[in-house]
Amino acid sequence: MTSRDIISIVDLTREDILHLCSFGAQLYAEDRSGQRLARIDSLKGKVLASLFYEPSTRTRSSFETGFRELGGFDPIGFSGTEGTSVAKGETIRDTIMMMQANHADVIVMRHPVDGSLQWAADVASIPVISGGDGRNEHPTQALLDLLTLYQFNNKKLDGLRIGLGGDLKNGRTIRSLTLALSHFHDVQITWAAEDPLGMPHDLEQNLRQRDVHVERKTSVAEVLESCEFYYMTRPQLERMKDVSQREIHALLKRYRIDAEAIAGFTGRLLHPLPIDSRLSEITADVAFSPVQGFYAQAEFGVFMRKALLYEILHDVPHALFSGELPHELQSGNNRIYRAPSGKLVGEKFVGLIESGICLDHLRLGTAQQIADALELVNRGAGVIAATWGAKSFLKTSLDALTERDLKTIALISPEPTINIVRDRAVQDKYVYLLCENDTCITRVITEDVPPKFYYDGNLRCRYCRRPYEIRNQKVLEDERQRFLNELAKSVHNL
Amino acid sequence: MTSRDIISIVDLTREDILHLCSFGAQLYAEDRSGQRLARIDSLKGKVLASLFYEPSTRTRSSFETGFRELGGFDPIGFSGTEGTSVAKGETIRDTIMMMQANHADVIVMRHPVDGSLQWAADVASIPVISGGDGRNEHPTQALLDLLTLYQFNNKKLDGLRIGLGGDLKNGRTIRSLTLALSHFHDVQITWAAEDPLGMPHDLEQNLRQRDVHVERKTSVAEVLESCEFYYMTRPQLERMKDVSQREIHALLKRYRIDAEAIAGFTGRLLHPLPIDSRLSEITADVAFSPVQGFYAQAEFGVFMRKALLYEILHDVPHALFSGELPHELQSGNNRIYRAPSGKLVGEKFVGLIESGICLDHLRLGTAQQIADALELVNRGAGVIAATWGAKSFLKTSLDALTERDLKTIALISPEPTINIVRDRAVQDKYVYLLCENDTCITRVITEDVPPKFYYDGNLRCRYCRRPYEIRNQKVLEDERQRFLNELAKSVHNL
Amino acid sequence: MTSRDIISIVDLTREDILHLCSFGAQLYAEDRSGQRLARIDSLKGKVLASLFYEPSTRTRSSFETGFRELGGFDPIGFSGTEGTSVAKGETIRDTIMMMQANHADVIVMRHPVDGSLQWAADVASIPVISGGDGRNEHPTQALLDLLTLYQFNNKKLDGLRIGLGGDLKNGRTIRSLTLALSHFHDVQITWAAEDPLGMPHDLEQNLRQRDVHVERKTSVAEVLESCEFYYMTRPQLERMKDVSQREIHALLKRYRIDAEAIAGFTGRLLHPLPIDSRLSEITADVAFSPVQGFYAQAEFGVFMRKALLYEILHDVPHALFSGELPHELQSGNNRIYRAPSGKLVGEKFVGLIESGICLDHLRLGTAQQIADALELVNRGAGVIAATWGAKSFLKTSLDALTERDLKTIALISPEPTINIVRDRAVQDKYVYLLCENDTCITRVITEDVPPKFYYDGNLRCRYCRRPYEIRNQKVLEDERQRFLNELAKSVHNL
Repeated sequence: MTSRDIISIVDLTREDILHLCSFGAQLYAEDRSGQRLARIDSLKGKVLASLFYEPSTRTRSSFETGFRELGGFDPIGFSGTEGTSVAKGETIRDTIMMMQANHADVIVMRHPVDGSLQWAADVASIPVISGGDGRNEHPTQALLDLLTLYQFNNKKLDGLRIGLGGDLKNGRTIRSLTLALSHFHDVQITWAAEDPLGMPHDLEQNLRQRDVHVERKTSVAEVLESCEFYYMTRPQLERMKDVSQREIHALLKRYRIDAEAIAGFTGRLLHPLPIDSRLSEITADVAFSPVQGFYAQAEFGVFMRKALLYEILHDVPHALFSGELPHELQSGNNRIYRAPSGKLVGEKFVGLIESGICLDHLRLGTAQQIADALELVNRGAGVIAATWGAKSFLKTSLDALTERDLKTIALISPEPTINIVRDRAVQDKYVYLLCENDTCITRVITEDVPPKFYYDGNLRCRYCRRPYEIRNQKVLEDERQRFLNELAKSVHNL
Repeated sequence: MTSRDIISIVDLTREDILHLCSFGAQLYAEDRSGQRLARIDSLKGKVLASLFYEPSTRTRSSFETGFRELGGFDPIGFSGTEGTSVAKGETIRDTIMMMQANHADVIVMRHPVDGSLQWAADVASIPVISGGDGRNEHPTQALLDLLTLYQFNNKKLDGLRIGLGGDLKNGRTIRSLTLALSHFHDVQITWAAEDPLGMPHDLEQNLRQRDVHVERKTSVAEVLESCEFYYMTRPQLERMKDVSQREIHALLKRYRIDAEAIAGFTGRLLHPLPIDSRLSEITADVAFSPVQGFYAQAEFGVFMRKALLYEILHDVPHALFSGELPHELQSGNNRIYRAPSGKLVGEKFVGLIESGICLDHLRLGTAQQIADALELVNRGAGVIAATWGAKSFLKTSLDALTERDLKTIALISPEPTINIVRDRAVQDKYVYLLCENDTCITRVITEDVPPKFYYDGNLRCRYCRRPYEIRNQKVLEDERQRFLNELAKSVHNL
Repeated sequence: MTSRDIISIVDLTREDILHLCSFGAQLYAEDRSGQRLARIDSLKGKVLASLFYEPSTRTRSSFETGFRELGGFDPIGFSGTEGTSVAKGETIRDTIMMMQANHADVIVMRHPVDGSLQWAADVASIPVISGGDGRNEHPTQALLDLLTLYQFNNKKLDGLRIGLGGDLKNGRTIRSLTLALSHFHDVQITWAAEDPLGMPHDLEQNLRQRDVHVERKTSVAEVLESCEFYYMTRPQLERMKDVSQREIHALLKRYRIDAEAIAGFTGRLLHPLPIDSRLSEITADVAFSPVQGFYAQAEFGVFMRKALLYEILHDVPHALFSGELPHELQSGNNRIYRAPSGKLVGEKFVGLIESGICLDHLRLGTAQQIADALELVNRGAGVIAATWGAKSFLKTSLDALTERDLKTIALISPEPTINIVRDRAVQDKYVYLLCENDTCITRVITEDVPPKFYYDGNLRCRYCRRPYEIRNQKVLEDERQRFLNELAKSVHNL
């Protein structure tokens, strides 16, 4: 795994995972035999950049503990962006470059936006490990959960029966853990939560396709009866907007794990921690019960992160910073080129412009809003914004559109058709695609991430990996095919 | 002192203190002879968890400096809870477990709630050193003050004449320092402050009982005439609520130490620092005067903490984390069991319930408020809340009360009597005690600290150590005696 | 450069700078040949106190990286003052003393007030390196910029043609960089910005006096044509108060560096970073262009700070803290003593006071305001505040004025004349000078910095180094001359 990025649990194979679990177990055994610092020379002189755009105690600490015990320097970076350059508007791109200029050898990063970690890994010439991106993934949490199951289950991950509780919908933990389990045979997952805490439909489907037995039971009691491990999670209240506090509390009461709930349960209760003592999704008495497994789980986090850091970095020489960005990140691959047509919408009403840009097939009634958002008048460009019948279009004498302009348009009117007009003729014509996941990094204008897609049977956003459906009816089948053919077949090809 | 917790200065003996002062003085001498890092191998590979729930520069830095010079790793933890798991509702209990999972060897902690440090020490299987709890204690500040006096006073702590200034009421420093001095012979303490800055009555009494000569003078000038050391403190404005800014400033003007005040004083002026430059309780010119002793005092803080860390941790092997909480913390010892009586209050009016709970002897008029606070209706339980004549009582069909329920009741109506009814008979009956110190950790519901008491002649709260008076008139003398007999005789027995 | 303070770039000679650049280049070469940690024993056991009163990622990180690679301990201190003793009102003076009590060997500090760094250096008995003070200077940024130019320009700093862009007015970077360049021959500086972003007049003049060719062009294009290096800076919006957002954006659009702007430019584009992605003063496409030099510049920051720390600290023994402040900081040298005159203003109207103080030549109409600000009535002093014709004066029975009192007066009425009256005679008479730079540390009352001046041909404030003009018309020429003669001739003499 030398110098590898860890962005999605799906990128790891069954063998990778088993190897990491077995190595993590070995590190645990070394620790218990008094050899906590036996590998103190492994990462001597190495630097960990710990970039937590969302504050974290737990994930960050366990990475730092692992790194410390392998002999690395104390970490650089930040936890929470207040008072950092990020608050002054620094992009992820520049922050990554800055960490490399400060001689980081590896980056651990958490960020609130989906796909931000893939982008960080693209920018960095050193390995990047995800500490969680938005609602997307948290792969090392999944790995530590697997190490915990591995340790509590006689070093086996096949045949597991696991129940899920709490908040299945809003946490990245459940997504990463269940996808990780899908590498193993004969796994049975049960759960009982209702909206707005239930398992997301796309995840359930994904798991079924990967041969995991997923079943929704009618009560927590029934789930507990059917499993050996019960994995409870904290309700991510900060991510729920449309649900009232009262409803949340009512749901919680139904799903709370207290002494009564676990009476008769002989398995292990896990939790990624922290438990929220205000909601008390697990009550204090349960913390004293023999089913409690979450404190040990926390320590397995240290061993798993230590294993990962060791595998990725040991015997790797110091990275020498080039001071340059990878050229392939300069532009996206999100334009479906089309044959310029003779005529443009509105031509007969307003005439063709001499030279400039014509936006076609805009969402009805958005032309003026787009003209305003692009500040065309302030930029000294001529503007004709029109809605006529079922068509909206925008003509401007502006020479060229920047990537930020294109995103601005696509955020208002998805899949706009862009016509570049020179000497009264359409010289270039394309449809501009932008990932439709609201919280995808490619939609954050100030981050300047050029949209990229790949095609693994589904068309997918390179960054958040969500599937994408081309909707623009004007795109011809052969234009579509040519576009898809030119895409990489996997996220791993830049 | 190997592996010992440092929670209260009172737990240390005269010999302990003299030993620490003598060792601190030795570390100072080593430093001045160019041997600052002579003990750099003593705590090699050890980890200090520095948990400052209230931010701190000074206490934290000096512990960290001491630890660094003994060769430990850089500290883990936090200073201020913003952006930590604590802000997500993590309990002290879980935070302590997390630090142990991250291989901490010792914990230094400051927390705004009284008794929190004793609780942390109870939870932790590694040594815990208090960096201050609420208005309670700050034992290592007292130790460094003693080292300062020891150094400035020819290595003697008997026979000291010390004046106290500034804010004697709201700081934990004065409490810990004066209690520490009470271990020594022939100590004379003078002070002149008025309400709301004067010495708390309970402290003054406590000191007198411990044979300290405490005397209130009428002016600062008189105090300065009678002492060799004047110990000034910062007014803890953030802890004063009912006093106007104007009054505080007026008081300060009277007690400010400026060039005029110290004219003629030939002793040493101490201060725990920081001096508040807005209030200027010590003026700038005094900082240049030969009586100034507080900068040296700050450095003695480093030597004292270094001495403590060395004594507690050197030659101690790494702690191996069990992943389990100590079982004796599961429940409190705060129930005075009583013989079930035949009849319950209100029986003749509302009849006895078949099965459930009856709360008796409630504070007049609180029955409905308690029913609401327990959310009995939401929990699907039957409720009869009644106030009749001088009696308030509450009957509910609820099966059992959790510890949080019991605290909720006791916070509204102290010393409630709980009757557990099964088959129309009272099966169990007890009075529930809860410490009456408003800022005691046992009263913070979300922390889930089971109330405990001990009896050293006074009945005392295990956590904040405040004396407790049983008020419930119904408790019979032999019930009270049996209860007291079963308690530990000292805080040191769990 | 052993044990030297780095406060202003002007204090360094051409030879100092060339030496540091050549040493920085050597450290870079060592790094690239795999010897990043070759000097890991140089600062073993040394402590860096990193005091960032304004938060910083970049400056702080690069100092810390340099220090780490030289083997020092991890830094102590803070970044942002929230939750530190500073928030509790601690002065710079006490914070510096505290860092020395914690065994710091060197201090790196950033502070929002001009002159604060010179004050810190005066207080400290260990070397102090400025990480920027207010709008004043940022000398190590200038040094790293010079190292960058040196590296990109074949190790020469004479004959440079450099263009400046963005915000020349509000950043300390431009001031320090251009002053640094003024040490070299045949330097040509061009710029094109308009108010409120243009080069400050005093700086332009200063540069001209130092033989730098400074020229304002009419457009960015013209500047780019005439230079080999274009140095862009971030608009310091947080420091602009009277300019609307709209105006700022309009200005930015004109000065933004995008693909079009740099078409044809073959030099190097530098920027101190961070680039503000919301304003996008440099657009994303430019970051991928071959003219981009700012990422390498960031790494040269590490090598320059490493060079500085090495030169200042290697082979220096640990500093032993004395616990005392330097006595020469106790008082200022800002009083022009005058011969007591027989009569005082207002004498014939209100009579001479028996004993007390008379403030003369006050700014018209300020007497009562001063009396209020000094809280004379609350202090129990008699007060006569009068404005009569063109004169304002204040008489009080107060015995003495503190330095804070004097500053309070001078902030309201500059250059007040103070008459100390004893037994109906003026015993002492002086004019009190206070630096007129609004953001000078001497004007911050709570910092208690005694005002000092020096005379290097101009009368200058010791702290912010701004020139000062004596305005009080009553001061006689020989009184003025005597005052100037007694001043130090350079800032370097205390």
